[in-house]
Amino acid sequence: MKLREKVILVGACAVVWLLSALVVMAQAVDPLPSWNDGPTKQSILAFVDKVTTQDAPDFIPPAERIATFDNDGTLWAEQPMYCQLFFALDRVKTLAPQHPEWKDKEPFASLIKGDVKTALAGGEKAIMEIIMATHAGMTTQEFEQIVKDWIAEAKHPKTKRRYTDMVYQPMLELLDFLRSNSFKTFIVSGGGIEFMRPWTEAVYGIPPEQVVGSSIKTKFEMRKDGPVLVRLPELNFNDDKEGKPIGINAHIGRRPIAAFGNSDGDQQMLQWTTTGQGLRFGLLVHHTDAEREWAYDRKSHIGKLDKALDEASARGWTIVDMKKDWKVIYPH
Amino acid sequence: MKLREKVILVGACAVVWLLSALVVMAQAVDPLPSWNDGPTKQSILAFVDKVTTQDAPDFIPPAERIATFDNDGTLWAEQPMYCQLFFALDRVKTLAPQHPEWKDKEPFASLIKGDVKTALAGGEKAIMEIIMATHAGMTTQEFEQIVKDWIAEAKHPKTKRRYTDMVYQPMLELLDFLRSNSFKTFIVSGGGIEFMRPWTEAVYGIPPEQVVGSSIKTKFEMRKDGPVLVRLPELNFNDDKEGKPIGINAHIGRRPIAAFGNSDGDQQMLQWTTTGQGLRFGLLVHHTDAEREWAYDRKSHIGKLDKALDEASARGWTIVDMKKDWKVIYPH
Repeated sequence: MKLREKVILVGACAVVWLLSALVVMAQAVDPLPSWNDGPTKQSILAFVDKVTTQDAPDFIPPAERIATFDNDGTLWAEQPMYCQLFFALDRVKTLAPQHPEWKDKEPFASLIKGDVKTALAGGEKAIMEIIMATHAGMTTQEFEQIVKDWIAEAKHPKTKRRYTDMVYQPMLELLDFLRSNSFKTFIVSGGGIEFMRPWTEAVYGIPPEQVVGSSIKTKFEMRKDGPVLVRLPELNFNDDKEGKPIGINAHIGRRPIAAFGNSDGDQQMLQWTTTGQGLRFGLLVHHTDAEREWAYDRKSHIGKLDKALDEASARGWTIVDMKKDWKVIYPH
Repeated sequence: MKLREKVILVGACAVVWLLSALVVMAQAVDPLPSWNDGPTKQSILAFVDKVTTQDAPDFIPPAERIATFDNDGTLWAEQPMYCQLFFALDRVKTLAPQHPEWKDKEPFASLIKGDVKTALAGGEKAIMEIIMATHAGMTTQEFEQIVKDWIAEAKHPKTKRRYTDMVYQPMLELLDFLRSNSFKTFIVSGGGIEFMRPWTEAVYGIPPEQVVGSSIKTKFEMRKDGPVLVRLPELNFNDDKEGKPIGINAHIGRRPIAAFGNSDGDQQMLQWTTTGQGLRFGLLVHHTDAEREWAYDRKSHIGKLDKALDEASARGWTIVDMKKDWKVIYPH
């Protein structure tokens, strides 16, 4: 063999070696670096390994790898109040000049004075009135812009950070990890579908067509400058509790193989998911970290986790102990 | 240069040449072989070329390339009656022994006697009664199996072929062509969403989560052997006419850039799609081929095409003249 040939041969071998080294390195990189080692992380890794190993007994074809995630309290913080409720309260203040009648009308009168507690004392009914007054009456396009503008600027009252910065870093890694294993990731939230869609793609990598949520009715209208969809002050669908499996069926039409939640509102979604045929995975985020986030469960008004927690061990659902299992909470 | 080196060099050149030849060949292969050359085919090719050419003025990023297709009369035949109605009539016959009361009750009494015309003389109301009696009362899983079993066996009364063999070959090519250009293809049909989902992936390559349609309500129920969704005899959503943009918004959350239909039921979907900002595409399949399929438009009870046809030229929608534009109708 001549020298040049030897050089070519050695060069080719070097390229092959480099490529295999890169593959090995890629495999060795921890896909969930913000998760502490332990049974929680292991349960996730083991599940994904089993359903993606071809010819293994638990293998599931890529098309069926549907994973559904609750949003509030599962992908981002929900205390002391849902982000969407902060949005609605801000909108009341913004819209107040156009609604002089609100001065004498609850729950708006209290809200305008800054007395949120009295305003929300009216419970579910008061909240629905606030939602309808702030979420309806405009076109879908106008509402999208309102949400985009607000979410780009608004700050959380306690952390002074943008709401989209209060997403959970370990869950972002989990979403990526699942997608890199050919899972299709969906949000299935009690929150408003049109409140989430304007930002979920940028923040979670989840496109609008993979967001399921609560909704109000819309109406098609042909205007001079073209057709619009007008948002009506009428509930269309409540995507919570029993509503979650119904919403999943309506939007996705397949039963998920993995579901992730944090409250009793997710109980039926986890039941529906984990009782399907074949290997299934259910996970609940338990908020145990009063220092880095919030600690709450059975007695919380927001994100109450009680019945679902009782059911978890019987059904084999994984419980994330936020304090113990997560190295960091937020991306920053 | 030694002989061996020359051989290696020539070999390498040959590989490079072969690869580029393959690329050129792939580009030269007609992506729509069942479409006759002419302005219809050209309008499709030109649109796809413009929105997919990077740095061109009409370029649209892959994530926004949403294309929506009506089903009945656009992707498969709908004459002399919607396939789903044949399904419902067959179900009435199958279920009749369990419903002795039907013998004296219209529209069932006439149907059992084989007198479809009298049964359907009751119009919309009669049809809804038939639909509810045959589509509700079971779990979603049971209904899926009923549809799968029926569609695998049932034959069209005129052609004696399976309904899924009466899909349009040119439209199958169009679906593939769009997907190979990073479009996400959706069905948006007035037909039942759960009647289509069991077979659209195998027949059209469209997965359940990309099917939008009419629906009845469902109810979550925890039974001894696990949770189920029970189908209720109550309309949930009518995905037709003004309903199509509403259904698109609810399910997809993005405005399509291309929409394909064949009747007045698709008019609002095409309006909604083609008045969006940027380059848009609307297409109507005009059934003009009485010999190979059916010829019908303004006066047809099924798939009436009247107002949308009038609107087409003003809006620049492409009209497919089935007889002239399609080399073949069905795949066989």
